[in-house]
Parts: sequence; C-alpha cells; structure tokens
Amino acid sequence: MTKAHRRVAILSPIAWRTPPRQYGAWETVASNIAEGLVSRGWDVTLFATRDSVTRADLHAIVDKGYEEDSSVDPKVAEYLHISEVFEHAAEFDLIHSHYDFMALTYSRLVRTPVLTTIHGFSSPQIMPVYEKYRDGYFVSVSDSDRAPKLNYLATVYNGIDLALYPMQPSPGQALVFLGRIHPDKGVHLAIAVARLSGLPLIIAGILQDEKYFQERVEPFLDGDIRYIGPVDVEGKNKLFSNALALLHLNTIPERFGLVLAEANAAGVPVIAMDLGSCREVICDGQTGFLVNTLNEAVHAIKRIPTIDRVACRARVQRLFTTETMVEAYEHVYGKIFELEATKQR
Amino acid sequence: MTKAHRRVAILSPIAWRTPPRQYGAWETVASNIAEGLVSRGWDVTLFATRDSVTRADLHAIVDKGYEEDSSVDPKVAEYLHISEVFEHAAEFDLIHSHYDFMALTYSRLVRTPVLTTIHGFSSPQIMPVYEKYRDGYFVSVSDSDRAPKLNYLATVYNGIDLALYPMQPSPGQALVFLGRIHPDKGVHLAIAVARLSGLPLIIAGILQDEKYFQERVEPFLDGDIRYIGPVDVEGKNKLFSNALALLHLNTIPERFGLVLAEANAAGVPVIAMDLGSCREVICDGQTGFLVNTLNEAVHAIKRIPTIDRVACRARVQRLFTTETMVEAYEHVYGKIFELEATKQR
Repeated sequence: MTKAHRRVAILSPIAWRTPPRQYGAWETVASNIAEGLVSRGWDVTLFATRDSVTRADLHAIVDKGYEEDSSVDPKVAEYLHISEVFEHAAEFDLIHSHYDFMALTYSRLVRTPVLTTIHGFSSPQIMPVYEKYRDGYFVSVSDSDRAPKLNYLATVYNGIDLALYPMQPSPGQALVFLGRIHPDKGVHLAIAVARLSGLPLIIAGILQDEKYFQERVEPFLDGDIRYIGPVDVEGKNKLFSNALALLHLNTIPERFGLVLAEANAAGVPVIAMDLGSCREVICDGQTGFLVNTLNEAVHAIKRIPTIDRVACRARVQRLFTTETMVEAYEHVYGKIFELEATKQR
Repeated sequence: MTKAHRRVAILSPIAWRTPPRQYGAWETVASNIAEGLVSRGWDVTLFATRDSVTRADLHAIVDKGYEEDSSVDPKVAEYLHISEVFEHAAEFDLIHSHYDFMALTYSRLVRTPVLTTIHGFSSPQIMPVYEKYRDGYFVSVSDSDRAPKLNYLATVYNGIDLALYPMQPSPGQALVFLGRIHPDKGVHLAIAVARLSGLPLIIAGILQDEKYFQERVEPFLDGDIRYIGPVDVEGKNKLFSNALALLHLNTIPERFGLVLAEANAAGVPVIAMDLGSCREVICDGQTGFLVNTLNEAVHAIKRIPTIDRVACRARVQRLFTTETMVEAYEHVYGKIFELEATKQR
C-alpha cells in the first residue's frame, strides 16, 4: 500500500485558526504536519476551524476559533469538533489527534487507530484520562515532557517551516521576549535581566494574564522596555532582526518551546532557563545558553558574541524543521500500521 | 423478551450524588427512574458518582459530584463519566441519558439506541448539538419545554417519590420559597409579595448567585423574611409544615418545576408565575394559582383558603409520581425497541 492510499485525519485544536494568525503552538504544529504530509504524497484530511488554510482536505464544524470569536461556546464547539472526526473514523487509516485528553475518550469507540501527540499536560487533574487510555499510541514533543507508564512510540520534536524565518543578516541591539504574557513564561525575569544588563528589551506576545501584566510588566515599561503586543510571522521576523538574543526565562518546565527554534532559525541566540525541554532545543554554548539564575542570564548576555549565528540556524535545519518532523511521524505511522496488522491477524 | 432481560443504562449527571443530598433536580429524576425501573423488574445499571445510593447496579468513575468536591475537575470528570457508558454500550439494550448535549456526541459511535431526556436547554449555544442529533430519541419534561424539529417520542412529566413528602395536616402561617437563589427563580419577587401581603417568608435553597443574593435578597432579611440555606428532604418537609403557600415567581419559563409537585404533594398550594411549564404542573384554582404580576400574586394569597389541600396531593398522585413517570418511560422504551427492530429488518 502506497502513502497516497493511506488516509490520515489530523485533528487540530480549535482555539485558533490552523495555522494560527499569531499565537497558537498546537495549531502551528498540526498545520505543519498536515502540509508536510500532503507534500510527501499522503491523503490528508485536516479537522480544524472553517477559516483554516490548508492544502489538505478541510473538514470543519466550527467557523472560527473560540479564542477569536466570542460567539463560539468552547465546550459546545469542542464536543462537536472532536466527535466529528470519530464519526468519520471509518474513512481513515489513522486519526492523529492534537486535541489533548478529550479526544481519547472517543478512541475506544472506533476501529481506526488513534495517535495522540501530547503537546503538554495542562494540569495534574487530566492525568486520570491518560492513565485510563495509556495503552493508546502516544508521541511526546520532548524527552523531558513525558508521563510515566504511557505507551510512547517516540519523541518527535516540533518542526517549523524554515522558509518563514529567514536568517537575519546581523545581530540587533535589543533583547527580545516572545511568548504568552504569563508568569510561566517569566516576562518579569526578562525585564529584570534587561535592567541588570542595561540593554533594551522588546516584549511581544498575547496578553494571557491581565493581572500579571498590570502588576509585573506594565509598571516597568518605558523607552527601553517596550511591549508591542501579539505578532504574526512578519512581526516575529522584524523582532528577530532587532534581536541580540531571545530571553526565555520560563518558570516551569518547558514542554517544547517552538519560539526557541524560530529564534535560532533566524540566527538569534537564545538564553533559556534550564527547565524541561530547553536543553533539548538549545545546545548550551552553541545556539545559546542554558541558565539557572538571573545572574547567570546576565553573564550569558556578555557571552552572546561567542555564539555562531549560522550554527544556530544549522541546528534548527537539522533537527527542528517540518521535513524532519514529518519524516519522524511517517516512521511512527508505519509502526502503528504494523502493530495494527499484527492485531488483526 | 421480558423486562428482566432488558438491560438499561441510566446515565445520571455528576454535579451531585444520585439522588442528591439537597439540590439537584436532574439527579433526583434520574434516581427516581432507576429505582422505579428496578421495582418493576428491569435490569438497570446506574452511571453516577461513586457515593450514589441505588438498588440498581452502580457504575462509577468519579468518587463525588464536582459541585461537592472541589478536587474534581468538572471537564475531566464529564468526559470520563460520559464516555464510560458508551464504552460499555454493548452490554445494554438502551442507554437513557440525562446528560444534556454532551452525551449525544458519542451516540452515533455505538449500536445501542440512546434516549435523551432533555431536562432543559441551558443556553441557545447548545442548540447546534441538538440540531445535529435531532434524529435521535428525545423526551421532553413538559410540553412547553420543547425545541422545534427534534424527534420527540413523548412528554414524560417528572415524578417524585410521594412517600418522601407526606401530607402536612394543616396550613402553616408563612409563605415559603424553595429553589436556587438565582434571578431566574424570582426570589426578589417572592420578597416583594411577602412585604405587600404583610406575611412572613421563609426562603430555602442553594446560594447559586452570590451577587444577586447580596443585592436583592440579603438587604431584606429580618425577623419576618428569613433565609435558612439549602435543605434536604427533612428540611423541605419542615418548610412545608410551616407553609401557607409556596411562592414560585420564576422570571423565565419553567422547564418542569419539581418543587411545585413536591409542595403540592405535601398539600401546600402553589402561587406560580404563568411561564413555561407551570400551567402544566399547577392547575389554576385547584392546586394553586397562576399569576402574571405581583398584584395578581398578592391577590392570589387572599384566595389560598379556597384551595383544597387534599386535591393538591391527589393531583400529584395522579400525574407526578415515580410510578406514573416510570410507566410512561416503559412505554417510550417499548416504542424504541419496536423502532430499532424495524431498522434491523
């Protein structure tokens, strides 16, 4: 059986469009997988919002993402969207879910195998669902973000579309932060490091925690420390063109950290807290620095000139592109088809 | 095939225990159906919280109701609880769901027929789900609470366990309110009527809308107008023993109004706003009065002595008991089995 005869359903989240206009890491990755599979000859149906953009067949139940349209009830939309793919299960050889724990609860009601990429465990309270369905097929997005006892087939690193993030010719003058404005992402730590270093800081990203912004970010904004709001791909590239380094001083373990790869792709070194997957995405001393304290971060900034910007992009090209990711998923799909064939014997 | 060989799964909500300790109309009705079916020889499995009390087989995934235990994540619990009954679908001849729109999204993935009792349309946003699954099997709890175009097999009025609400020997002196403290239930209107009538008012029920309570209820509490909190069955009977009449001045259409039947069962006349199902549960002039304004309510209180308290209970006994309800559901189940048999031919 050739790839073209293998029918894969990609179940994307519906918080945002696939791919998202600005923020939306899970939708970004689902999009990259869908488009990558199409390029490689698979028969792909993308289950996503109706305004999604794809070369796969689009199957939509919800017009817009619930984060982009307040008339959409998230609970109603999720139940309708997730059940839809399972009602069409017989049309597919594989359902590849990016929809967290909820999709698992439909998986035993269909014969089609279900692969779940776990983009993160959003809370300890969802673990009972993974425990119940632990004999399913799972992929982790980093070695560090794994739960014990699940049936992981592989770690597949997230991949980005390199063409979207061209190499920036020369270093900029500012430190940059790119991510959700949320305590988990350590915006306040980036501000502290910028002040200690006497360097300007440009902060970009969606405002997720209003109170945190008002208390820990806004009071420090001035000519040197600026918040420019959420950015699209063009905005990210502009940000990277101004960047001396990306500060990613996360306060909880990172699950993957798509933004680290995006910055590196543009040749921008990354200073990241050594928590979770950061040490898998960033090679300490080669594509940035892993730190444990504010002082280490300040010290790392002084060493930024020692980082070879071309090497940053080269590592992304080797490990974190859509192509690498899709090849890895093809391998995982192949394993599942083999295992399923064995079952049916 | 005899009843005893018909296996029915009753899917109860898990906001509260089944039956609930205090408030919880949907769980009350699910419990009454399960127990009634057991009495009549059916093979019943109740899907409910683990602390539920039943003579049916209990199948539980969640220890306690999410309204009673803050450690339970409602979203996680609902997905696990609802999917569980569908994963066991092959063990049943019928799944009788009391779980709102969510259960419908699993219904097409199993062969077992699914009957949904619609206890109310909680918001217009859930209607797309009912529209998608409109060819399912539905029961309304009153003729007034019906959506157009759904495949209704019948209206089955909710039934109560008459033994729990004995006839109170004589009228009390106070007006009583029993229900959620929420604008929909018109607690503020009950207070206004009590003040206009110069009669004491006892308010009982769970505090659902804190702000409403603080602004529209609490300021009027004094020796004559009292709030006694939520009540269990014993508390309700004590309330009814003190009741001249129950005030139920709902501000939105009532879907059924279990409390109206409970009060009438105890011989307590009901003054209800003529909205939704109230005119189906209360017979105007015989078991209480239907009103449209505060003035009409005040006037109705003067006419309470014309109501025959025995007739109140008699009407409940005829129309709103567990037995009547369960017989009606047996009839609905029979119709479904016939329709399913035709399909399979």
